[in-house]
Amino acid sequence: MEQGRFIAFEGGEGAGKSTQARLLAEALRAAGREVVVTREPGGTAGAEAIRKLLLDTAGPNVEDGGWLPRAEALLFAAARSDHVERLIRPALAAGQWVVCDRFLDSSRAYQGGGGGLADADLLDLHRVGSLGLLPDLTLLIEVSPEEAAARIAHRDGDEADRIGGRPAEYHARVGAAFRGLAAQDPGRFAVIDGNGPREATQAAILAAVERLA
Amino acid sequence: MEQGRFIAFEGGEGAGKSTQARLLAEALRAAGREVVVTREPGGTAGAEAIRKLLLDTAGPNVEDGGWLPRAEALLFAAARSDHVERLIRPALAAGQWVVCDRFLDSSRAYQGGGGGLADADLLDLHRVGSLGLLPDLTLLIEVSPEEAAARIAHRDGDEADRIGGRPAEYHARVGAAFRGLAAQDPGRFAVIDGNGPREATQAAILAAVERLA
Repeated sequence: MEQGRFIAFEGGEGAGKSTQARLLAEALRAAGREVVVTREPGGTAGAEAIRKLLLDTAGPNVEDGGWLPRAEALLFAAARSDHVERLIRPALAAGQWVVCDRFLDSSRAYQGGGGGLADADLLDLHRVGSLGLLPDLTLLIEVSPEEAAARIAHRDGDEADRIGGRPAEYHARVGAAFRGLAAQDPGRFAVIDGNGPREATQAAILAAVERLA
Repeated sequence: MEQGRFIAFEGGEGAGKSTQARLLAEALRAAGREVVVTREPGGTAGAEAIRKLLLDTAGPNVEDGGWLPRAEALLFAAARSDHVERLIRPALAAGQWVVCDRFLDSSRAYQGGGGGLADADLLDLHRVGSLGLLPDLTLLIEVSPEEAAARIAHRDGDEADRIGGRPAEYHARVGAAFRGLAAQDPGRFAVIDGNGPREATQAAILAAVERLA
């Protein structure tokens, strides 16, 4: 059986990743693919339990300022390991296409760019946890800080999680790190302008995905 | 101020580590030291939350066989990172002696010897998570499988946790791995015979700790 394809969506808060992941999955299914849509941190029972520790604003050590960058990076890598071993690799081996909302590059951008950890260390954690699995295609959705803020403000009753609630300077470093990663590896990344209407963004994504056909 | 000393207890289930850690702390305090007694996984709010994920028999993914070795190793390293950064290093810097029930070598013996991960990978996780902090002295308490089983059977109403409940072959590999680690690094390890009465074991521990004075 032919191996499936692994597509990850990346970008800051309010970029529209979840919506576009869903739309891409619909388009791929309409084209006859079997598709699994999933997200990080999460996607399996174990990884979703780790997600709660990472993101719940009522979780442990909130009053101490939350997780320090090293522990945070290890928790993301642990969730990713469970997700890769129990869901992503088996799905790909069964010929399914996997569309994932965030993957390794979020750790590199957030715990690396935002938290100050060395990129080589984050890649080491990924090598040990997930044998270094990389997406076939990583779609980096870029929106301006103003557009992202406007979209986040329109989310109904959705409080910021622990990481989304960090200061604007943190998120600016995350955005710069994402752009740097995409520039380093243009063969794997496609940078998508997410500022326009949803349909325009979707069309750009579908064009980028054609390289996998 | 003089840096404190870091002493870790290691060994399989039923070796008497917790009891001996408490007795050692009492002896050190009687000798005028300030002592922090702690344990792994755990010791801080964040690490105790990770401990529940790792050990509770009612936690996530039990019906799938529990954590796979890579995710398990990352979770232990995450708990250790929080413990080292928030408790162990500050205590040592303040001149306190830290007595810890289990540390890095448990990961090397359980996830390495028991779970089959490469020792170099476990040391990489420790380098990223805890900047490679090692104890000044690691006390490996060795008891025969028969003695360990008898002690575990006498624990009141204490159900085996997820790892303690693994098969005897797993625990035999753990024991062999501990002995191998001690043989590799005799400068840091002291191997203590834990089969005799508690007082004899304690005397051997106090003799080993004299090398730190």
